[in-house]
Formats: sequence, C-alpha cells, structure tokens
Amino acid sequence: MNPLDTPPSSLSAPHPSPWQLARRTQKMNPSVIREILKVTERPGIISFAGGLPSAQTFDIDAFDVACHHVLKNEGQAFAQAALQYAASEGYAPLRERVAAFLPWKVDPAQVLITTGSQQGLDLVAKVLLDEGSAVAVETPTYLGALQAFTPMEPRFVGIASDDEGINPADLADKGREARFLYVLPNFQNPTGRTLSEARRAQLVSVAECIGLPIVEDNPYGELWFDQPPPLPLTARLPDQSIYLGSFSKVLAPGMRMGFMVAPTAVFPKLLQAKQASDLHSPGFNQRVIEQVMKGDFLERHIPKIRQLYHHQRDVMLAALAQHMPSGVRWNTPQGGMFLWVQLPSVNGKPMHAVDLLPVAVEKGVAFVPGAPFYSEQADTSTLRLSFVSATDEQIRKGIAMLAAAINDYATTLV
Amino acid sequence: MNPLDTPPSSLSAPHPSPWQLARRTQKMNPSVIREILKVTERPGIISFAGGLPSAQTFDIDAFDVACHHVLKNEGQAFAQAALQYAASEGYAPLRERVAAFLPWKVDPAQVLITTGSQQGLDLVAKVLLDEGSAVAVETPTYLGALQAFTPMEPRFVGIASDDEGINPADLADKGREARFLYVLPNFQNPTGRTLSEARRAQLVSVAECIGLPIVEDNPYGELWFDQPPPLPLTARLPDQSIYLGSFSKVLAPGMRMGFMVAPTAVFPKLLQAKQASDLHSPGFNQRVIEQVMKGDFLERHIPKIRQLYHHQRDVMLAALAQHMPSGVRWNTPQGGMFLWVQLPSVNGKPMHAVDLLPVAVEKGVAFVPGAPFYSEQADTSTLRLSFVSATDEQIRKGIAMLAAAINDYATTLV
Repeated sequence: MNPLDTPPSSLSAPHPSPWQLARRTQKMNPSVIREILKVTERPGIISFAGGLPSAQTFDIDAFDVACHHVLKNEGQAFAQAALQYAASEGYAPLRERVAAFLPWKVDPAQVLITTGSQQGLDLVAKVLLDEGSAVAVETPTYLGALQAFTPMEPRFVGIASDDEGINPADLADKGREARFLYVLPNFQNPTGRTLSEARRAQLVSVAECIGLPIVEDNPYGELWFDQPPPLPLTARLPDQSIYLGSFSKVLAPGMRMGFMVAPTAVFPKLLQAKQASDLHSPGFNQRVIEQVMKGDFLERHIPKIRQLYHHQRDVMLAALAQHMPSGVRWNTPQGGMFLWVQLPSVNGKPMHAVDLLPVAVEKGVAFVPGAPFYSEQADTSTLRLSFVSATDEQIRKGIAMLAAAINDYATTLV
Repeated sequence: MNPLDTPPSSLSAPHPSPWQLARRTQKMNPSVIREILKVTERPGIISFAGGLPSAQTFDIDAFDVACHHVLKNEGQAFAQAALQYAASEGYAPLRERVAAFLPWKVDPAQVLITTGSQQGLDLVAKVLLDEGSAVAVETPTYLGALQAFTPMEPRFVGIASDDEGINPADLADKGREARFLYVLPNFQNPTGRTLSEARRAQLVSVAECIGLPIVEDNPYGELWFDQPPPLPLTARLPDQSIYLGSFSKVLAPGMRMGFMVAPTAVFPKLLQAKQASDLHSPGFNQRVIEQVMKGDFLERHIPKIRQLYHHQRDVMLAALAQHMPSGVRWNTPQGGMFLWVQLPSVNGKPMHAVDLLPVAVEKGVAFVPGAPFYSEQADTSTLRLSFVSATDEQIRKGIAMLAAAINDYATTLV
C-alpha cells in the first residue's frame, strides 16, 4: 500500500493518546525556581540562588567510617539487616536518638523516619488534605511545601506575616476552616525570619482556641548564630502538632534522611501512607546516620556549621551595607541560610525581582526572585539570597555586581 | 474551681479532635499481611511467609568497597556531590547503566530513579488515577501495588488469570475503561507464575487495540532458573507502557533503589510528582549502586542468586511431593521467590488458608494466605510459600509440619 494513501479507517484510525492523566496533574508544574536555577547554572556565575547547604560542612570521613562500621564492624547479621527490607516506622535506635535529640519529651513510638523531610510533607498532604481543603500558610512560604501539598488539590490561605512571622490575629480570622497551619518557625525559607517567643505563645493560643492543627517544619533550627531559637510550637501543643525534622542541613542532604513526630491521632495513618509510598526509608542510611550521631558528634559538628554560616552572613551584610543603593532593604537573619531583600520603587514605579534577574545574570550574579514563594498576591519586589554557598570573596564581588545590576535596572525605570 | 464542676462552656467546652483526616484515609488500612507476619515472627517458627530476598545473597564486601570508593577514591568534589542535593531524575551515570542493562533500546532520558520500585507505584497512582478511575489488575496481584494505588481512590477491575497469567479475552472485555493494566509478568508475587510468550503477544495486541496503557512491574525478572523469561511488554509497546524495575532482589532492598522507564507522554509529570514526593532518591545510594554495577559484577553475582533460589525451589518441590496429602496442588515456578498452593475441599467443604494458619503456626510453620492478594472475590483456598528465606533442612521440616497441619485441619471439616 502506498503509505500516502488514506488507510482504511477500520485498520488504523489513529488512536487518541492512550494516556489519560489524573486531573491533579494539571496543577503540578515544573518548579519555577528549578527553571530559574538552570539559567543561573552557567559557569562563572556567582550564585546566591541555590537552597543547598555548604558542601564543605559535610564530614566525609565521618560518613566513610560509619558506612564501614555498619557493614563490617557489627557482624554479618547487623550488616544483613541494614541491607534487608525493614519496618516502615524506621530503625528503632535511630528513632530513639531522634527523640532524645529533640528539646521536649518525645516518645520514640511517635517518631517516623522519612526519606528526607520533603516526604513528610507528602505524607501530611495524603493524610490530611481532600480536594478543596484549606491549608493556612505563611506569606511567603516554602515553595517545596506548596509543591508537595498541591497533588492533593487543596486551596492555600495566605496568613499575613511580618518580620516576626505569622500575624496571630489574621490567623484567628482566616485559619478557622483550614485543615492545618504550615509553618517554618526558624530562619525560614525563603525569608530567614524567625517566629519570636511572643508570637509562638500567641500562635499556639490561637491554634488551640480555633482547633487548628499545626504542621511545624524545622530544617534550619539547629543553625542558630547567637542563641537558640525559642522552643518549637510542637513542644507547646504536642497533641495538635506534627513536627518535621531533617538531617539534610546538619549532616548531608544526599542521604535523604528526615523524620516526623506525630501524635497518636494521626500517626497510624501517616505510617500507612509511608508504607504505601516507599515501604521504608533506606535501612542502610538509617544505620549510618545513627552511627554518625553516636557519642557527641553532632555536639561537635553543628557548632562548626553555625560558625561558618554566621561568618558568611556577616560578610554578606557588610557587602550589602557597602554596595546597595539607597532604598534597598534587607533583614538580618539570626540563623539559617537565607537573607531576604526588598527592592524600592523608582519614581513610583516598582522594581520587579524577576526583571532584575537577567540584568544580574548578565553581570555574573544570580538570586531567586521572591514571587514563587507566595501562595497568593506575590510581593514581586522581593528576592532571596543564600549566603552559604559562596566564598567570602565571591560574596563581596557578587553583592557589588548585584548592586550594579539594581542601579542599571533602576535607570530603565526612570 | 472544683474540677468536677461543670465548667462554663465558653471557657472549656471540650473541642472535638482538631484533626480532620482526608477521606482517602478511610480506605488506607494496615497491611493484612503485615499483621499476619507479626503473629508468625515468634522465635522458632519456620517461616515461608515473608517476601524478603535471602540475606545471604547480599554482597556485603562489594557494598563496603563501593561506599568507601564513593566517599574517598574519586576525590572530594565527587564525595560532596554524593552527599549534596541533586536532580530529581537521578544520577546520570546510573540512569545510563540502567538503560544499558535493560533488554531493549532505552534512552537514559526516559529513566527515572526511584526510592525503591514501590515509589514508582505511588508516582503512577498520583499521575494516572483520579477518584473512581478503573485499574485493571491480575487475579491475584501484588498487595503492595493495591496499597500504593488505594490513596488515589481508584476501583480495581480483576482480570481473569490462569497459570500463564492474564486472560487476553477477559482483558479485551473489561480493560476498555481502565486507566492502565498493572501486571507483573515474571515469577509474579504472589503466585510465582510467568506470562508466556504467546500471552505477551496477545496482551500487547489487546492493549494496543483498546488503547490501554500498561504498567509493567518486574522486580523478579532476573531471578530465572533455566532460561530467561520472554521479552518485557514494554519492549513491545514502549510508548504505551511504564516499566518498573528494582535493585532490591539482585543487590539489596535496604538501599531502596528502583527505577522506572516512562515514555515522553508521561515522564515530565512523573518527574514532577517525584520532585514533590522526596526531591530525589539518595544520591549517595545511587553512586554506590552505580559503582557496584561497574564492570561485570551483576553478570557474576546474579547467577549465584539464581542457583541458590533454584536449589531451594527444588528442595521445596521435593518436600511437597513427599509430604502433602492428596488433593493439595501447587505450581512449579520457573524463577523468583514464591510458590502457590491450592488446598482441596474435604467432603465438599472448602479449606480456607486463613483457618489453616493458626493450626500451622501451632505446629511451628507459617505462610501467607492468598486472599489478601485478590482485588475482588478471593480464592480463600490459596496460600503463598516463599522458598528463599529458609535453609534446606528448615524447608523439609516446615513442609512436613505444614502437611501435618493440613491433615489436622481436614479432620475438623469431616
């Protein structure tokens, strides 16, 4: 048959695509930030854009020793157990260490080991969100949480927030119908801000009063500079809170080890969701982390990370003070990895971080615009700077370039 | 205030639980098998119940060498990358090795590394299933898949299946409305059966004709005894199939490393679902597996597993032939880990595997009843035996005990 002939329809009427996607996939989109990062990964660019911890904080030797220990020093049965299928809850000694490490009384039976704390967000969404359920979030909030919750098709309710974090009155007003409040209390991603002690007390009081569960995500809490942050919200309201923690910022993200602490009202369902999701987190990695945590390793290791990031923050603050044109504002985070910048208006015309970005990249420096972190009504004048992935020299150079880019961009608005 | 006084309602009317669970959690229940396994984990019990590979097949030294290599032999930048955040798609050299290892032409860009192949099932459900969507499954099928799909609230359509696997005519009849067919073609869990070449050709033809996508789950395919199984379904219909693979049965489950191969029509959404679920699978584990796969390790290692399991199957078959009362039937799997037994009726009364179990455990032997593996209308006379976790002596003793238990149970039905 001439292939250009019209084929008989009974033989080969072209099928529509056999793939019918779930409706939720319409809401699942590539991370804006991921796309931005691709642009900014050009060689030679000084990047303040990433959300990665500094790789120089990874104690490679400690991992090397721990891996060998798990596989060779504890006997064959131990190594075989590390490599075998295991309980979905996690490795019991690691659950005990996590419980002991947390600054309030935690029963190890409430600890669920997860494949990074990102998985904790996925499990929370599966267990607590129906289509259309409201989730109260900070303004702005962690983009990865919005992405983890989105497949369950909730609606996000942004709660007014300032330098001290969530506004309790606005939460009392808008939080009543929400399934939970999602909050990063310490050195938040993206803003670097921390919930003050007073705010914590108020938030807990509001949450208790309106019966609003709290999902507290605390990946950065150990990275404080001058003093530890106030006690977690979960410590104050344990039966009404789920706490998410991570080893990614104090040990290494590439092991994908996180955990959640959940009350008995939701733990069994989270566990079932965990089992259905990946059976269990790698038993080998759990034993390696447990081994690394033995003795006082974290007590010696974490202060080094604090000192490094503290220093890098100071270098960035000094460079900002030296170079930034007037009107540009930034905060002074008390820990963590990020600093938040607000661009001024020029002649009544607002500067948009997303328009500044190509000008900055052209000069050789990258950042992440703040807009994607807002669940609603983005403040497009904001941007996030990571101070932990660049050297002192790069920070000084990069901030000078950024200042120059802002000046150039401002002239286009005059 | 006397605590027994009725408190003023405005102060402390007891809140209902603040936790409102998602509707899908009503369908999420603890694994029946998990509960059964708890009972059968009594010390001294000979267990054919587990779904675990034999721990003696884990090459501990190879993992020890590979971990050290990844952390110390390739330089600091390599080790730091292994411990850092990474791309959601997976480690490029591992994706290339997976593509090269598969028995049809696969573009590494189609390979997505997952946290065990169980995660592949979770991603498939998120991307392809709406509430009420039909999923066509074998009769019986892998329980873990039913659990992974259930949170997205599909309905399961059981397709008639026999010793050669799925019945193509029944699939043509019932598969038309399904979002996909889920199938384990090789040495299936729970039955140990394998789709014949003729059935594969027929299934692919039916799937193509009715536009039914295939999700092919192949964790056991490498564990063949006399000859490799026929070519995967995905190799025959790549644009209409998602293939799930695993390192759990050829290397070790405790590393939680699996992969999926998906066509361009669904890959981007699976990738976004993966990113939202756990950002990426552990970069350290990916490099360790890639290192272990280098050279001809798998070519030397997998034949040892085949030989061991082949021998264990033969020991169990011989013991069954020696001990089982007449009327009990079993199959002869050509690979994998499981064997399927059907109990007879006694005086017209059916034997139920779930009623046999306590009698068997009393005698000191355990198995898994077949009923939980059926999506609908369970055949309660069936049970699954794993032949890979017990020694030869335990297999002989355990099968004799099981036969005695069947005889005892039969007397109660007379």
